[in-house]
Amino acid sequence: MKILIVNAGSSSLKYQLMDMTDESIICKGLCERIGGGGRIVHDPINGEKLKMEIELKDHTQAFHEVVRLLTSGDTKVIEDMQEIDAVGHRIVQGGAIFKKSELVTEQVMADIESLIPLAPLHNHAHMQGIRACREVLGTEIPEVVVFDTSFHSTMPPEAYLFGIPYKYYEKYAIRRYGFHGSSHRYISAKVAEEMGRPIEELKIVTCHIGNGSSLAAVKYGKVIDTTMGLTPLDGFIMGTRSGAVDPSAICYLGEKENMTWSQMAEMLNKESGMLGISELSSDSRDLNDAADAGNERAALTLKMQRYQILKFIGAFVAAMDGVDAIVFTGGIGENSDPLRTVVCGGLKYLGVSINEEVNKIYRKGKGGEISTPESKVKIYVLPTDEEVVIARDTKAIVEGLKK
Amino acid sequence: MKILIVNAGSSSLKYQLMDMTDESIICKGLCERIGGGGRIVHDPINGEKLKMEIELKDHTQAFHEVVRLLTSGDTKVIEDMQEIDAVGHRIVQGGAIFKKSELVTEQVMADIESLIPLAPLHNHAHMQGIRACREVLGTEIPEVVVFDTSFHSTMPPEAYLFGIPYKYYEKYAIRRYGFHGSSHRYISAKVAEEMGRPIEELKIVTCHIGNGSSLAAVKYGKVIDTTMGLTPLDGFIMGTRSGAVDPSAICYLGEKENMTWSQMAEMLNKESGMLGISELSSDSRDLNDAADAGNERAALTLKMQRYQILKFIGAFVAAMDGVDAIVFTGGIGENSDPLRTVVCGGLKYLGVSINEEVNKIYRKGKGGEISTPESKVKIYVLPTDEEVVIARDTKAIVEGLKK
Repeated sequence: MKILIVNAGSSSLKYQLMDMTDESIICKGLCERIGGGGRIVHDPINGEKLKMEIELKDHTQAFHEVVRLLTSGDTKVIEDMQEIDAVGHRIVQGGAIFKKSELVTEQVMADIESLIPLAPLHNHAHMQGIRACREVLGTEIPEVVVFDTSFHSTMPPEAYLFGIPYKYYEKYAIRRYGFHGSSHRYISAKVAEEMGRPIEELKIVTCHIGNGSSLAAVKYGKVIDTTMGLTPLDGFIMGTRSGAVDPSAICYLGEKENMTWSQMAEMLNKESGMLGISELSSDSRDLNDAADAGNERAALTLKMQRYQILKFIGAFVAAMDGVDAIVFTGGIGENSDPLRTVVCGGLKYLGVSINEEVNKIYRKGKGGEISTPESKVKIYVLPTDEEVVIARDTKAIVEGLKK
Repeated sequence: MKILIVNAGSSSLKYQLMDMTDESIICKGLCERIGGGGRIVHDPINGEKLKMEIELKDHTQAFHEVVRLLTSGDTKVIEDMQEIDAVGHRIVQGGAIFKKSELVTEQVMADIESLIPLAPLHNHAHMQGIRACREVLGTEIPEVVVFDTSFHSTMPPEAYLFGIPYKYYEKYAIRRYGFHGSSHRYISAKVAEEMGRPIEELKIVTCHIGNGSSLAAVKYGKVIDTTMGLTPLDGFIMGTRSGAVDPSAICYLGEKENMTWSQMAEMLNKESGMLGISELSSDSRDLNDAADAGNERAALTLKMQRYQILKFIGAFVAAMDGVDAIVFTGGIGENSDPLRTVVCGGLKYLGVSINEEVNKIYRKGKGGEISTPESKVKIYVLPTDEEVVIARDTKAIVEGLKK
C-alpha cells in the first residue's frame, strides 16, 4: 500500500509518499510561496533531489506539479496516481468535533470548515489542500484527515477549561484543545516501546520543542493535560510565540498601546517569545551562539525557555502524581543538548540523572535513552515522526473500508 | 510601642491597633461603604464590639471616626492619638520601585502614586488612606508603607518576565510582581520556626488560598517565583478572578464579544474564576455544599481549583529542585480540609502523606503540622498574619529613626 501524506499550509504544500509495507519513504517534497512566486523542492529518496522555481498560483496548481513530478521525467517514482491507495491530510484544529482520524466526506469537510474560526490560518489552508487534492485526483482515491488535536481529546474538563465564565465555553467552544498531537502520540508510544513496557502502565511527559513547542502529560496512554490551548499559542515561549502571559498584562498592554484584538494576537504569535525577548532571533541556534559570545539577553532568553519548560514538566508530573519517563523531541528537543542538560539538572528531586556523554551525541535524528542506569526516571531523546502517524491512521481507515 | 495598622480599600478602611511589647491586638475595626452610606465595626478586644451605621463621605471622615472611637466613650482604648508611635499602611503595588518597606515621605508618596496605573483600584485607595491619616493626625506621627510586592522582589528575570517583546517591559514595566507578599513572608518564616530549622536552608511552597489566592516558591528565605503577575489576577482560579488564561483565548473572546480592554479586565477580575465556572457562587463553602448536594458544576469548579493548585505546587517544586515544606493559609487554605486532602493526595510522588484526623481538626485559626512522621515533605496549616508583618516592619523603621 502506498500513501501520500499532505500537509497544506497557507502558502505551502508539504508531501511525502510512503510505502506502507515497510513504512519507507519513497519520495518527499515541499511546494513553497504558493500564490506569490513559487518554489518546489522534490526529493525522490533513491534519486536526485530537484529544486525548481516555478509560478504556483494556488494549491491546485501546486498539486498538479506534484503529480507531474511523481509520475514523469527523471523524478518519477510511480507510473501513475492510481498506484496511490490513499491520501492522508494533516489538520491542525479538530476542535471538540474530532476525537479521532476520519475518512473525508462532505460532512467532514463541512465540519473542518466550521472550525476555521478556531484556527483561521491553519484550517483554511488545510481545506485548500483537500480541495486541490480532490480537484486533481478526483474522489476515487480515499482521503483521510488526521488531527493535531485528537490525541489530546482525552483531557478531563478540569484540564481543558479556562477560568473564564462557563457561558463562553458553551457559546464559542473556548477551551484548551492542544496541538502536536501526532507527535506526542508517536513519541509516547515509541518511548513505551523503547522501555519494553506497555504504555497503559506508564506516566510519560512528552516534550515537543521546536519553533512551535508543547508538552503533554500522557498517563497510561492517554493525554491528561497539555500546554497549548485554544490555538498553538499557550504554554511556554517559542520562536516567536509568547506562551502563557498574565491576562491582566495583556489587557494593560492592549489599552496602553491602543491595540485591536487581532493586532494583539498577531503580536503574541509573531513578535513575541524567543524573538521578542532576545530582540535578536527566533532561532535557538542563533541564541546559543550569541549567548556563548556573551550576549546577556540571548542567555536570558534561553534561561527563560528552559525554566518555563522545567516548570511545566514539574506541573505535569504533579498532575500524574509521578513520572516514569520524560522524552524530548522536535527541532530543539532533539538537537539541543544544553537545553536537556539544564532541564534535567533541575529534576534531581525526582531522581533524574543523565549521562552527559550520551546526551551530547544524540542529535540530528539520532536518539535513545540519555538517563543513567541509576536514574529513577528514564529520559529519552527520540526523533518524532508525525507523517508515519498520519500514514498509519490513513492505512487503518482505508483497510477498514474494504471489510 | 503602639502601632496603628491601616489597610485602605476603595470604599473601606481596615485598622488594627497593636501593642508591640507582646504583639497583642488592642483593638481592630473596619469602616465600610465609604462614599456611599457608611458602616463601622469597632472591636476593642477587651471591650464590647460596636456596630454602627454612619454616613462616611470619604476616607478622611472615616479616619476621624476611628480616632474618636479609639480615644473617647465606651470604645476608648487610648487617651489620645499621641500614644500611637507609628502608623503602618498596607500597599498592594510597589512595582519595581519598592523592594522593602519605607518611611512615608513626599517622594515615597509620589512613587506610590506613579504606580497607580499598575494597580488602579488598590494604590489609589491606599493613597486616600495615607492622605486621610496625615490630614487627621498630622505628619508628626511617623508612617510606614509595607508592600504586598516587596517580598517577591527577589525573583530572577526568568521568573518575572513574560514572553512578550522586551520593549514592553522597558516601556511600561510590564512583568510579574506578585502579591500577598506579607502573608507569604509571614508563613514561610513561621513554618521554618515550626520546623526548628533556619529558613536559609529550606525550600518552601507557600499557598495563600482565599478569595484572592497565590502560591510562592520560597527558596532559602527568598521568593524565586509566584503565581500572581502584573496585578493580582494571574495564577489559578479564585473567587471571581480567572487566573491564567491562554492569551489566544482572550483575544478570540474579545474579538467575538467586541469587548474593550477594560471590559475584558473587568470580566476576568469580577465574573470569572469559581463564580464564572460554577455560575453559582464565588464562595468555596457554598460550592462545597452544592457539590455535596450533587451539583456537578460546583464539583467541577472545586476540582479545577484543586487541580490548578496541585500543578503550581508541582511547578514550584521543580523550580526549586525539591521541597522541604508546603504550607496552607488564607480563608480557604486554613479552613478547607477537603482541598488539602485532594492536593496532598496528588503529591504522593514526593513522599507526601498527611494525617487525615489532624487535617480535619485544623481550621478557624488553629493550625500546625498535618503531615505524618513518615512524610518526606512537611505539610502545615498555619493562620497567616499580614498585620503583624506590617507592624513589625513599621516598628523596625521607626526604631531606626531614633538611632
